[in-house]
Formats: sequence, structure tokens, C-alpha cells
Amino acid sequence: MVAIEFTRELHSRFGIDFDHVEILEEAFTHSSYANEHRELGVHDNERLEFLGDAVLELTVSEYLFKKYPDVPEGKLTRMRAAAVQTRSFARFSREAHFDRYIRLGHGEENAGARQRDTLLEDLFEAFCGALFLDQGRQAVIKFCEQIIWPHIDAGEFEDTRDFKTKLQERLQRGGDVDIEYNLLSEEDAANNQRLFTVAVTADGRELGRGTGTSKKHAEQDAAHRALATLA
Amino acid sequence: MVAIEFTRELHSRFGIDFDHVEILEEAFTHSSYANEHRELGVHDNERLEFLGDAVLELTVSEYLFKKYPDVPEGKLTRMRAAAVQTRSFARFSREAHFDRYIRLGHGEENAGARQRDTLLEDLFEAFCGALFLDQGRQAVIKFCEQIIWPHIDAGEFEDTRDFKTKLQERLQRGGDVDIEYNLLSEEDAANNQRLFTVAVTADGRELGRGTGTSKKHAEQDAAHRALATLA
Repeated sequence: MVAIEFTRELHSRFGIDFDHVEILEEAFTHSSYANEHRELGVHDNERLEFLGDAVLELTVSEYLFKKYPDVPEGKLTRMRAAAVQTRSFARFSREAHFDRYIRLGHGEENAGARQRDTLLEDLFEAFCGALFLDQGRQAVIKFCEQIIWPHIDAGEFEDTRDFKTKLQERLQRGGDVDIEYNLLSEEDAANNQRLFTVAVTADGRELGRGTGTSKKHAEQDAAHRALATLA
Repeated sequence: MVAIEFTRELHSRFGIDFDHVEILEEAFTHSSYANEHRELGVHDNERLEFLGDAVLELTVSEYLFKKYPDVPEGKLTRMRAAAVQTRSFARFSREAHFDRYIRLGHGEENAGARQRDTLLEDLFEAFCGALFLDQGRQAVIKFCEQIIWPHIDAGEFEDTRDFKTKLQERLQRGGDVDIEYNLLSEEDAANNQRLFTVAVTADGRELGRGTGTSKKHAEQDAAHRALATLA
């Protein structure tokens, strides 16, 4: 059963009311729950995730295509990849409070799966697949208007991966420079994630430090901060 | 300008009439043509390809999801990957006669780009992006009904990559067998492609031969034919 608080929250926050609440229920059923409760004959959310993945791909693509009429295909593709990546969808899932309502098996619950990014990504996709099936594509667009477009409009997915390139270009204007990224620490963080801290140096001089849930993200963050000090 | 024969063919074969023929024109403009004719200020089809890629991903996903209500996510994902791969889209492009109408620069034309699979794939996506923009998603679904669904319904994308696994399982029922795939020949074929011929043997005995535009495809084809002789 879907929690009554959840259907109320969907209604009040997003104006969403499912006609077939069993589709919503399926979207919020993790395979570990379905496996533990075979007697209930419940379906897990993996097929809806398959559909929702494609629904979101189109919805985000169409928004970017129309919002940036003069941006070439390569940059649109990079922005789309940033918007639909695991980390982004997991974040949208949390913002929509989906993490509170997914049904998990005991083992997965104890292993902390409720806050695992890949699970929350799949859940976000499954919800959008369910919404598409039950209420149509316009309902998904309306939901994205509230959850995804504000992040796109804030420029969060623009060139996020290009800070290292930009820093290199900026530093090498004056001739060859030896740029290095050094891992300073790696520790456990919330949500079963690791937190990496990286320093960037130019000819041995430290220009900035960055953190992130992967070494790559930490390096980008360090490059971003270094660029800010150079600007 | 879009050739009049083409707009007539779209109308008579597919019942498609564009409201904004300049969008159709953009879909059929390769970057090499746009580069050679900068004075015309024409756009190439890459942005439409970006959009069409996502349009097709959803359209195919929705069809598979509804057609196969009992098929698990993993298999749906494999079927989708087979249906939307370069080779499939290039084939649909040719079936729709799109190869006749794309506008290419001279250099690319002379290099045989008109029959290049990746170009025809991009063209198919760009056309579907243009159709989606101009006529809406239902028009894309109607077009897919004529061009893609017959191939899905014929089972062409089911487990196509599993013939080698199936052959192995079939042969090893009776104990360990040494299975080998040997490349017999590799030659130039039409459309700038290579044609590979492979033989599959079990304990040195040849069970079948297959051909394909890659070694992998030829091996799958050989396994498929071997399975047919063993059935």
C-alpha cells in the first residue's frame, strides 16, 4: 500500500493525483521488497524504470532544445548528460521526498540502500514512468517544471565538466605550466558515499582545493575554485 | 530546398505533410553541406538529431513496454538497444528512402558518405526530431508503426546477441566441447562496409558459417546457422 501521507504530499506539492494507485505502488517497490513478499505477488519497479528513463531523456532533451536555440548539439548533449546522471536524479528524488516512501526488503534497508544514489536514481525514473503511464507526458513535463527546470535554469549543468580544461587554457596563456591534481584525503561521508579532497597546483604552487563524491568531481571542483581566485 | 519528389513521397507513403518545410529541410542538411554553403545561412541537422534520438528512445521504449507486459527490464533493455542501434536506424533510413534526399557537401559525397551507416542513423534521428517538432509525438508514433514496429513484431531484436551463448549451452549439454570461431575472409562490400565470413567449429568439426559487417556479427550469424542445423 502507498502511504496516505505520500499521496497527500504528491497532491499538495505537485498537484499530482494518480488514477491507478497500483502503478504508483509499483514505482515505489524495490526488487528486494518484491522478493521478500512473493506471497503478495507485487511487481518491482524495474520495468517502470526502463520506461521512465526514456520519458525523462525526451523531456529534458526537449526543454534544452527549446531553451537554448543557438547552442550546438555537442554542448546540448553534455548538458543533457549532466542533468540525467545518477547524482542529479538521486538529488531530485530526495527533493521530492521519494526516499521516505520506497518499500525495501529488510536486508537492503539495513544496508542503508534507502539513501543509495543509484537506488534513488532508479526510483526517480520509475516514478516518472508511472506518471507518464497514468497521467500522460504533459503531467511529466509539469512535474519536471517544478523539480528539474529550476536546476537547469540556474546553469547547474552548463559546462560542469570543463573547469579543468578552462583552467589549463587560462594558465597556459603565459606559456607552459605544469598542472597537477593531488589527492589529499578520501573519507566516508553520508549516504554510503566517499568524500574526496583534491588540491590543484601550477608549477608546484597550490591554486585551490576541491571536494566531491568522486576524484573526478573533486578535481573539477578544485579547478573551479582555482579559476575563481585567478579571475 | 527539399525536393518535391520527397515531399510527395512522404505524403503518399506515410501520410506526412510538414507545416514548416524548413524544419524538414534542416533535417536533411548534413554539416558538410552547411559548411560548403555558409552564404545560404542554412543550419545542419545535428540539433534535430539530438532531439530525435530522445524521441525515438521513448517511442521504442513505450512500444516494447506495452507489447511485452511480462518481459523483465533486462530483456527490454537489450531489445531496445538492438532496435535503436546504428545498423537498425541506417536500415530504416534506407527503407524510407532518406538516403536519396540528404544534402551533402562535395567532399563527403565523393567519399561515399551518402551510404555511410552512421550518417543514415543521424539522418533518421534528425527526421524524427523534425517530425516531432512540426507534427507532434503521435505523428512519430504513426511513422514508427510503418517503419519500425514490423521489425520488432518479426522478432528481429529479440536476443540477437545471444546466439553464441545459446550455441555454447546447447553443445555443452553433453559435456565439455571446444568451440572455435575462425575468420575465413574479410572483403570490401557495398556502402563502404567490410564483409566478414566466419566458421564455427565444435571439437574441430565445422557446424556453420556466417557473414556480417563486423567479425562479431559474422560470429553471431554463424552461431545462429549452427543452431538451426542442430535443432
